[in-house]
Amino acid sequence: MAHCGHNNPRVIEAVQDQVGILNTNTRYLHPNMVVLAQRLAALLPDPLEVVFFCNSGSEANDLALRLARAYNSAAGGKGSHTNTIVVQGAYHGHTLANLEVSPYKYEKGTEYKLVPGECGSHVPGPHIWKVPAPDIFRGPHRDPKTAGAEYASYVQRACQYYTSRGETVRAFMVEGGMSVAGVILPPPGYLTACCAAVHAAGGLYIADEVQTGLGRLGTCMWAFQYHDPTLVPDIVTLGKPFGNGMPLAAVVTSRKVAERFETVGVEYFNTFAGNPVCAAAGLAVLDELEVRGLQHNALEVGTYLQNKFRSLMTTIDLIGDVRGSGFFIGIEMVNDRQNQTPAYAETSYICSILKSKYHILTSIDGPADNVLVIKPPMVFSIADADHFVECFKLTVTSDLPSANLSKLEKTPT
Amino acid sequence: MAHCGHNNPRVIEAVQDQVGILNTNTRYLHPNMVVLAQRLAALLPDPLEVVFFCNSGSEANDLALRLARAYNSAAGGKGSHTNTIVVQGAYHGHTLANLEVSPYKYEKGTEYKLVPGECGSHVPGPHIWKVPAPDIFRGPHRDPKTAGAEYASYVQRACQYYTSRGETVRAFMVEGGMSVAGVILPPPGYLTACCAAVHAAGGLYIADEVQTGLGRLGTCMWAFQYHDPTLVPDIVTLGKPFGNGMPLAAVVTSRKVAERFETVGVEYFNTFAGNPVCAAAGLAVLDELEVRGLQHNALEVGTYLQNKFRSLMTTIDLIGDVRGSGFFIGIEMVNDRQNQTPAYAETSYICSILKSKYHILTSIDGPADNVLVIKPPMVFSIADADHFVECFKLTVTSDLPSANLSKLEKTPT
Repeated sequence: MAHCGHNNPRVIEAVQDQVGILNTNTRYLHPNMVVLAQRLAALLPDPLEVVFFCNSGSEANDLALRLARAYNSAAGGKGSHTNTIVVQGAYHGHTLANLEVSPYKYEKGTEYKLVPGECGSHVPGPHIWKVPAPDIFRGPHRDPKTAGAEYASYVQRACQYYTSRGETVRAFMVEGGMSVAGVILPPPGYLTACCAAVHAAGGLYIADEVQTGLGRLGTCMWAFQYHDPTLVPDIVTLGKPFGNGMPLAAVVTSRKVAERFETVGVEYFNTFAGNPVCAAAGLAVLDELEVRGLQHNALEVGTYLQNKFRSLMTTIDLIGDVRGSGFFIGIEMVNDRQNQTPAYAETSYICSILKSKYHILTSIDGPADNVLVIKPPMVFSIADADHFVECFKLTVTSDLPSANLSKLEKTPT
Repeated sequence: MAHCGHNNPRVIEAVQDQVGILNTNTRYLHPNMVVLAQRLAALLPDPLEVVFFCNSGSEANDLALRLARAYNSAAGGKGSHTNTIVVQGAYHGHTLANLEVSPYKYEKGTEYKLVPGECGSHVPGPHIWKVPAPDIFRGPHRDPKTAGAEYASYVQRACQYYTSRGETVRAFMVEGGMSVAGVILPPPGYLTACCAAVHAAGGLYIADEVQTGLGRLGTCMWAFQYHDPTLVPDIVTLGKPFGNGMPLAAVVTSRKVAERFETVGVEYFNTFAGNPVCAAAGLAVLDELEVRGLQHNALEVGTYLQNKFRSLMTTIDLIGDVRGSGFFIGIEMVNDRQNQTPAYAETSYICSILKSKYHILTSIDGPADNVLVIKPPMVFSIADADHFVECFKLTVTSDLPSANLSKLEKTPT
């Protein structure tokens, strides 16, 4: 969330200055909002040029679903305009409409007994089609050369199902890098093939960049560009990193999608979204990225960090997989590399000791709660990386052997 | 939104100080969030003691619908857990779930052709029951002594409908003061009777205080207390005024409702909500209210302002009604008091001249776009009120007669 580091002086100064001058709601057009929209749009490929501001990634994803719904409605497509293809383990936010497309959430909680098909239903109806996460470590398809096409075939099948019923698809909604699903980067060709399939079925490709946007992957500004720099989603959402902790998020789309929303949709107004103070924080974040070359830093230090962890695999059997790109790294812990038995107690212990003894915050994700997630601020340095790896090594080699893991409960996530 | 006034020194200092120390997401419990929750809960009647933070009123109302749904699910009530009674002209936010309960929005836009009953449907299905706004100026029941019971009977009928089908009601969701519906305060007895009816049908009473909370009505901290200080909703939401412009909102409920949500719901987590910086703004707002006695100021100056406008009615025929309480005032403009013909062109012109010539911001609401809405910051003084009335008088008596109103389009709202 603190994309450019906690207590970033440029962000602090921007917020302090603006709050001392004016904060107001967004019925009153402030230059900060206008300039921020222009600069954000310039970071996205054409024809993504229309920006809607929100306060959170959840609001952004909710609005993206609205836009896609209006698009389908205007196109006159048959069906409920809610047919949506989502990925197992996906998390797109906390609103009722978000939860419906977030298997990570509704599969964790006690399931509601609701009429299938309703929004907010925790057992979504036939309008929500869940495809397997394109996980080449643990999933059914593990050859990186063919996995992209193989996993995309599930999306194609979902499209065929709706098409065969004479219905259109509202959207394929997917994170460019799947964070809570266990730090999964879609294999080559996956997103491109899925995008083609959903377009053929009349729907939109919504790229959720709430976790991965603004350069985190190092090689690209947005995760959807990771394998295919020419790929252009219909709607892109961003959140967490945008305001360096201040509530700020956005939806960016094409003029075509925006105009259809204007024609058939219900006016979107959001009191706080893009207010001058939060927008000032957003502008400072974009300045920091640009001036300090933070995307390049993520690539350089992230690659260094991954290599360090890869080399640890020769001595630490617990590390089953090291994956990701830039500052979006997952370390999957297993008790048995052959069978990939999830080492959730060990992962929980390591995460906990890193925090309590070494004052380093990591988090745990993945369906088996055994993926240590490393998503440091974009200013993380080589020295920080060395220190982190050293602490990790100490935790695993010195603290872990004396731990009574049987006492450990599965970590709540 | 700037509840304690634009550029309020206490709020500015609180934000500037905290952003210079630490901002972080709410996985990490910061004292500001804890203290703010305690102080907010102390402003609400028992048993409302559990606080969920959000970034916006929309998020708060979306979460309130989730809580009510989980409550019904846990109670084992039959039905879809989405049966909700809402008021004509109501606005509860911009998320897909909010829109469904916001006739103000979906009745204004071009209606979608959707399968009835779906969330986000702009022609809500049978699970959304719309009752008439309890408007004693323009509605079917105009005697203040009997209107409360008469309007409540629509809610009772809705409850009976669901009950007769063996279904429970999720909620009756209502603004304590209906802002966009045209600044309508429910008549005496209305909310109390509606609350009893919805409880008997197994549902919850959700009080939306996004516009009216934190003392705006002058006589009470919350609008639901206006006619009945003993009335206690099951869920209260607040937004706009809470952070004086910083994104901050909350849902407050009882431990019973919160515990049922914990049992059957899906975990609620919200990255930015209640972060230390926005919470600092919230704390400063509560300090201002308390130290400066702003609720009392709203009562005193608001009453003065209403009296001024009432006395203008003797000379300005255009004023059809003056209503509200404290700093929640509506001036309804009519061309003909007998027939109450909405003077929307005149209202639009007045609002526009007040802004362009006199630099005073008002807004326009109501189904006929003819209610001038006066919701000043809580620090508005007698001198401000005099100046405003003077400018209004000048606009109506000096600017308006020479205006070519035929050129005026209906104001977009």
